Amino acid sequence: MRIRKKPWFEAEMSTNRAIIDEPAENKGRWHEFFGNENPIHIEIGCGKGQFLSEMSKRNPDVNYIGIEREPQIIVSALKKSRIAEVGDNIAFFIADVETLGEIFEAGEVSRIYTNFADPWHRRKKWAKRRLTHRRFLDIYEGIFGENGGELFMKTDNTVLFEFSLNEIADKGWRLHNISFDLHNSDFEGNVMTEFEEKFSAMGMPIYRLEGYFNKSPE
Amino acid sequence: MRIRKKPWFEAEMSTNRAIIDEPAENKGRWHEFFGNENPIHIEIGCGKGQFLSEMSKRNPDVNYIGIEREPQIIVSALKKSRIAEVGDNIAFFIADVETLGEIFEAGEVSRIYTNFADPWHRRKKWAKRRLTHRRFLDIYEGIFGENGGELFMKTDNTVLFEFSLNEIADKGWRLHNISFDLHNSDFEGNVMTEFEEKFSAMGMPIYRLEGYFNKSPE
Repeated sequence: MRIRKKPWFEAEMSTNRAIIDEPAENKGRWHEFFGNENPIHIEIGCGKGQFLSEMSKRNPDVNYIGIEREPQIIVSALKKSRIAEVGDNIAFFIADVETLGEIFEAGEVSRIYTNFADPWHRRKKWAKRRLTHRRFLDIYEGIFGENGGELFMKTDNTVLFEFSLNEIADKGWRLHNISFDLHNSDFEGNVMTEFEEKFSAMGMPIYRLEGYFNKSPE
Repeated sequence: MRIRKKPWFEAEMSTNRAIIDEPAENKGRWHEFFGNENPIHIEIGCGKGQFLSEMSKRNPDVNYIGIEREPQIIVSALKKSRIAEVGDNIAFFIADVETLGEIFEAGEVSRIYTNFADPWHRRKKWAKRRLTHRRFLDIYEGIFGENGGELFMKTDNTVLFEFSLNEIADKGWRLHNISFDLHNSDFEGNVMTEFEEKFSAMGMPIYRLEGYFNKSPE
């Protein structure tokens, strides 16, 4: 399913090389797109792109792709010139997570980030919308392929965090570096998202986990 | 290492069939001791025995062994007649967790409970004293044997819970039924410990997890 884009978005997009209009056309050719064989890490729900932009600067040997469902969020980022200033190892596109299997070939993605995703915590029946629901983990397994991959997650929400631990464990993935209070932990090199800066300033602890499919934590 | 017992404990013990004086003498013969082939579940740090007594009543087809490091705690329980009233499927002994490998043959124990263990949370260097430290998980693996076993844990302490999730995950065990608020979860059939009743009455959430060594959650 393609998400309908507004005309002003189309205009903005056509002038910015970091925004990919038809991501599915790159399926199986993402390394070609980046012009190298470096690993590809994606962020599902990249918001205004602060986290991924900083990551792409710190790690020039990794290719980053930010994925957002809402066109206006990425355009808002463009207007602030955040994305415009980024390097060659980063790109963005608009898509629904359900379609990732149509966009990436098995093995093209080796790491997925999800930061402060909508917790859908107020009703149990909404659990299937959570980005760590097993139906999404199935999709992630598909794009990781047989060499495996890893999911790195941050959230401020207890319900989502507890749910995610269980879903990942029950899928038989390995958990690692589980933190109940990231900013007071030994974890080094954390890059904050926009939400994280806000929540953290309010004194809220940040949860973080790493889940490994078909591979062991290094 | 044998723990020294006070004379009044020896007296109490000699008159109560549920208290085992020399547990290591039953190594490899625990099923013979109980007179059946039912699974053997142990609780490390059984306190006054409330949890295990109730479990033994609810599950007559399981053999329970409560283990405590402090003789006076079990005797205090005896004085309240809690242990005296229990059935044939329960026993207790005094031992240090470090010695469990001298007391049980591989495969004799299929489940371990640890409820509200000392979290040793105030100093990082105390982490190795925590009952879910990997050095203890090694001991548990030894008594579970090749058919595997499971560790069921409850605590009110965030530091211990986070630590335990990581230790269990990093040992490659499977996690399951992770709960951040047991009393407000879907979990059924919970038996409360003395501590749990107190903490819960104070409105504190109870953490719980299940860890599976060499087997999958059923």
